[in-house]
Amino acid sequence: MTDPIPAAFARGFASDNFAGVHPRVLAHLAEVNRGHAMAYGDDPVTARMRAAFDRLFGRPVTTHTVFNGTAANCLALSAFARPWGGVICSDVAHLANDESTAPERILGMRPLPVPSVAGKIDPAGVEAVLRRGHGVHAVKPVALTLTQPTELGTVYTVAELRALAEVAHRHGLGVHVDGARIGCAAAALGVSLREMLVETGVDALSFGGTKQGMLCGEAVVFLREGLGADFPFWQKHAMQLASKMRFVSAQLEALLEGDLWVENGRHANGMAQALLRAVTPIPGVAVVFPVEANAVFARIDPARIAPLQQSTFFWPWDEQAGLVRWMCAWDTEAADVERFAAALAGSGPTAAR
Amino acid sequence: MTDPIPAAFARGFASDNFAGVHPRVLAHLAEVNRGHAMAYGDDPVTARMRAAFDRLFGRPVTTHTVFNGTAANCLALSAFARPWGGVICSDVAHLANDESTAPERILGMRPLPVPSVAGKIDPAGVEAVLRRGHGVHAVKPVALTLTQPTELGTVYTVAELRALAEVAHRHGLGVHVDGARIGCAAAALGVSLREMLVETGVDALSFGGTKQGMLCGEAVVFLREGLGADFPFWQKHAMQLASKMRFVSAQLEALLEGDLWVENGRHANGMAQALLRAVTPIPGVAVVFPVEANAVFARIDPARIAPLQQSTFFWPWDEQAGLVRWMCAWDTEAADVERFAAALAGSGPTAAR
Amino acid sequence: MTDPIPAAFARGFASDNFAGVHPRVLAHLAEVNRGHAMAYGDDPVTARMRAAFDRLFGRPVTTHTVFNGTAANCLALSAFARPWGGVICSDVAHLANDESTAPERILGMRPLPVPSVAGKIDPAGVEAVLRRGHGVHAVKPVALTLTQPTELGTVYTVAELRALAEVAHRHGLGVHVDGARIGCAAAALGVSLREMLVETGVDALSFGGTKQGMLCGEAVVFLREGLGADFPFWQKHAMQLASKMRFVSAQLEALLEGDLWVENGRHANGMAQALLRAVTPIPGVAVVFPVEANAVFARIDPARIAPLQQSTFFWPWDEQAGLVRWMCAWDTEAADVERFAAALAGSGPTAAR
Amino acid sequence: MTDPIPAAFARGFASDNFAGVHPRVLAHLAEVNRGHAMAYGDDPVTARMRAAFDRLFGRPVTTHTVFNGTAANCLALSAFARPWGGVICSDVAHLANDESTAPERILGMRPLPVPSVAGKIDPAGVEAVLRRGHGVHAVKPVALTLTQPTELGTVYTVAELRALAEVAHRHGLGVHVDGARIGCAAAALGVSLREMLVETGVDALSFGGTKQGMLCGEAVVFLREGLGADFPFWQKHAMQLASKMRFVSAQLEALLEGDLWVENGRHANGMAQALLRAVTPIPGVAVVFPVEANAVFARIDPARIAPLQQSTFFWPWDEQAGLVRWMCAWDTEAADVERFAAALAGSGPTAAR
Repeated sequence: MTDPIPAAFARGFASDNFAGVHPRVLAHLAEVNRGHAMAYGDDPVTARMRAAFDRLFGRPVTTHTVFNGTAANCLALSAFARPWGGVICSDVAHLANDESTAPERILGMRPLPVPSVAGKIDPAGVEAVLRRGHGVHAVKPVALTLTQPTELGTVYTVAELRALAEVAHRHGLGVHVDGARIGCAAAALGVSLREMLVETGVDALSFGGTKQGMLCGEAVVFLREGLGADFPFWQKHAMQLASKMRFVSAQLEALLEGDLWVENGRHANGMAQALLRAVTPIPGVAVVFPVEANAVFARIDPARIAPLQQSTFFWPWDEQAGLVRWMCAWDTEAADVERFAAALAGSGPTAAR
Repeated sequence: MTDPIPAAFARGFASDNFAGVHPRVLAHLAEVNRGHAMAYGDDPVTARMRAAFDRLFGRPVTTHTVFNGTAANCLALSAFARPWGGVICSDVAHLANDESTAPERILGMRPLPVPSVAGKIDPAGVEAVLRRGHGVHAVKPVALTLTQPTELGTVYTVAELRALAEVAHRHGLGVHVDGARIGCAAAALGVSLREMLVETGVDALSFGGTKQGMLCGEAVVFLREGLGADFPFWQKHAMQLASKMRFVSAQLEALLEGDLWVENGRHANGMAQALLRAVTPIPGVAVVFPVEANAVFARIDPARIAPLQQSTFFWPWDEQAGLVRWMCAWDTEAADVERFAAALAGSGPTAAR
Repeated sequence: MTDPIPAAFARGFASDNFAGVHPRVLAHLAEVNRGHAMAYGDDPVTARMRAAFDRLFGRPVTTHTVFNGTAANCLALSAFARPWGGVICSDVAHLANDESTAPERILGMRPLPVPSVAGKIDPAGVEAVLRRGHGVHAVKPVALTLTQPTELGTVYTVAELRALAEVAHRHGLGVHVDGARIGCAAAALGVSLREMLVETGVDALSFGGTKQGMLCGEAVVFLREGLGADFPFWQKHAMQLASKMRFVSAQLEALLEGDLWVENGRHANGMAQALLRAVTPIPGVAVVFPVEANAVFARIDPARIAPLQQSTFFWPWDEQAGLVRWMCAWDTEAADVERFAAALAGSGPTAAR
Repeated sequence: MTDPIPAAFARGFASDNFAGVHPRVLAHLAEVNRGHAMAYGDDPVTARMRAAFDRLFGRPVTTHTVFNGTAANCLALSAFARPWGGVICSDVAHLANDESTAPERILGMRPLPVPSVAGKIDPAGVEAVLRRGHGVHAVKPVALTLTQPTELGTVYTVAELRALAEVAHRHGLGVHVDGARIGCAAAALGVSLREMLVETGVDALSFGGTKQGMLCGEAVVFLREGLGADFPFWQKHAMQLASKMRFVSAQLEALLEGDLWVENGRHANGMAQALLRAVTPIPGVAVVFPVEANAVFARIDPARIAPLQQSTFFWPWDEQAGLVRWMCAWDTEAADVERFAAALAGSGPTAAR
């Protein structure tokens, strides 16, 4: 039943969602595939996975599974949802730009973008949105969502997260972190999720599964007691309740076991650093954002994009401007970096723009 | 990372979603886990899976994947959705009773139940609902959904499906089949899906994955040309677009390969027949619906339910009335049937109600 | 700018929403039409209207205006709304049959009908719906709505209301009364709204405006403290916030002044009694429900319907069955009743069915 | 039943929705208040009103009534609605800033703001938004809405409207005009609505009622054949169907009779010009946008705002920046302008910022 994979996709730099399933995740699926189990999460695998999240955060948290990243973000935000509400986010947030109208459909809420610098927003930007309100007439901000690492490959420091959470809470907003690649952030900052999220005041987390090595599934984790009490109803009516949940839970369990999620993030970050080192000397390649996680953004001559994609696929970020994104994954290898850097070097001579 | 499974769940008769993953499905996941692949469905596995569905129906169909059964039903019905619309269904339909407000949230539509007999509805029932309308004031029926096999373990004949589709089309309704266990129906009727669904005029199908042996995932198949053109937008904004779609597609591919889905259905049906034969002579057990697929519904003394559940779990259908459901799965074995029948026999003496 | 009104519409028995505006309402509109006033309800007329509702209920209540009856019902129920919720109602409720998918669109909720007898439901019927639930899978009942008088012209007694509210509260449901014609009920029962609604435990009321003599507008009144705190946000985003609100409030003020709403209801009820007396002796006319408010439901030979409608318009309730509704309004006159009874008598000889 | 109106509200410059009802509108309400009429729009007044709109546009158009401006905008846009769609608008659009989440609730759509200059957007701005799309992942633009006159008191020329409609249609978008104050634009441009809207390619119009002299109600007019076929269903389920519609229609009829809507707009524009002349010489008052319709925007010392509001109420636009809006209405009189200009002059001495 198998066709050859086109060479360009053997292992490129398009996205960590082009990568496969980590072998330890797949192996654990086979391990839990014995006999019958209660459906909808009342199974022992899900119970163990939840206990593992409690240990990860060093306190009892409320953990649920969903199928994909959009669902993780929207349903994590459900804890703060009001039908007339808005969610403050960065202007490059996945929630605002890459999740269609899911926030509207599921939450009834509108993303309220704040201009970002290298993917990050700051308290002043949040407060500027908050000042706009005029009673019932405007969309009322009810939550702040932050992406960690950001969509542009930068990482909020613990102090930055604390300051943002503080301003949000002062105005009565809930604080959510989109951690689709949270392992990259944990590896970059070298801190525990307890330090990064609990102690800074974050209320809810989308803990990435798919991009961190699973085949599908994410965790929604509520860090503050009492939050998420209604989650099972939100989850069910939003079509995100897995009947054979043990097979989603098992993947998360494998990811937490031995901190595989951090290991995967550290590896991807390391490959991004290798790529940074390899492309920096190449004429006509200008890296544009600090490389703090697993992505390298660069500006190149737009004419180089299409030919390069033939041998190693990646996505342009702004094609006209020649802005491209090279994303490393848990399975990126040093040879992939070398091969691509060679191709990039060979795609000149080009003048820097 | 594993705990012992409680004996009652070793392999009971609760539901086919208590069963595990078929080994051929799991094996195929490992096979496609090589290198990178385009995300969101532009991968070769998904292309092959779609071609396999074309072959299954003997004509080009439009096939998409979703994560669970509720999503399959709601999104298959999206092809007919109007914000003021309703979906005619049986009064025991999963859509009406077991999917929370997903039809409302995702489609904006209301289920319009028709009284059923042994799980089936007929054209007269459909027409009675259609007569109720009064312009813009009432919910306007836009689709008919049928469950095949029904929630009560009966199977619509080809002629019944044709007659229902005919009345629906005459009134401008789309026709959807919820085929969460369609393999059981195919095995029971001994006909192809082309005969059962295409030639009877069905427009859209939820082709079950989870209950037929997958770990998660279902297919939505549009059988009429032009239907489903907007599906990718529906799917995305309803949070049902898998990024690593090849791993959902691969499971479906394994299910279609060698008609594993029919084989699994035939096996489950056979186990239900074995169970029927085993329980029929037991005093105080009255089987209440024709056993045409993989479920046996019986009436027993309510006092027998809880003790029996201790050794072999199953769900009551109407606990006060002593109505219970025993559901067989692709992995049910003859020994399971024997063990359970023995336990049931031993749970008397009881008087039939 | 005026055409002659067709004779059949001069003043028939179709509905109280065919009637015009009470002259005292129109006169008060002119009175408040002086100078400018704060928009969106911060005006003195609205403040006076709210004070008048406080007096009506003998305690501080929370009163808001909306434009029509569907909005009054849906937004009064917003106080109890959950995205996965359902509203228990009678199977002839306006909410379930005559408000399209507004409950779904605005509240995300599904009406859950209870079989009624002469338009009324009882605690046993409510409890039967409540027993159906199974956790997150079913729509979860969150409120009970009652129509007073019912859609079939009957009136709940104070004791019946109390018993229904009691069962609802015991299960954590909010209790709403659709009082589109509440003046008819008040006149019929001869009790204050305090006795009828506050002391029986009703939480929220749709106080009818349009059918009680206004040109458009209704009041939503929350009778329990703390309810309706979010109403202004619900109202705004549901497009029911009047900018020149003083002109809706003024109409309600006129309706409350001197209990015009009760006077109008008493008059309409009286006309219905006159009609009942006039039609009862006519051969082939069988009145089918107790005439307790302003409607008379009767069964006649279906062949009589269309000819009668030519001279005096009314609506069939179930045309095939010959079930018709004759509705009196605040402006119905004795001569209208006599003229119609004569026409009805003249439409025979017919055989009763 | 009347209290004295606070002096500050006698007739200020807050908004045209602070104004009352035009006497000809009120008089016509009384005229149509005779006998009964079919509900929900099947009445002769509504038929006449629709014919008057046909005459206004010089062709058959599809006209419906709604209750307020938010409903007019959202429901006019329903003709283009897709659940994953977005509406391109100016960054000062009422739809984006002043209608809460109504676009999300009613249409499921997100406003997509374009930076404006003096309230106007241009084709390049529209195209910049259109370039952002990436298939199913982003919100898909389906319509363009323009406000005429703009929220900042400027007026699109006929050529500007044509160019904007052209770019929208080229990309498959519908074109809507929010004409809450369209009479001001018609008076300013001196053209018919046929020239301004039909011949430029506009598809749908919110024709303002409330701000143009009615007590409540607006018209939604579809200018292109075939558009709006589903409108009655949208209207009903969005709770915007008036049962006694003749009383909304009568107000619109009065507004169209003798072009009262243009007369009112011309008067308000003239008052704005008088205000402009009166305030221009006052030290510390800087008018900031061209005064083309009925609004004057000025920058003043923020400290002057509160004291001035005591005698004559108006709204700050950006309080910190000292940006204020003075809005004239159909009933503004020369004496109001003089009185306010005198108060403004007296509120100094102040330094211009």
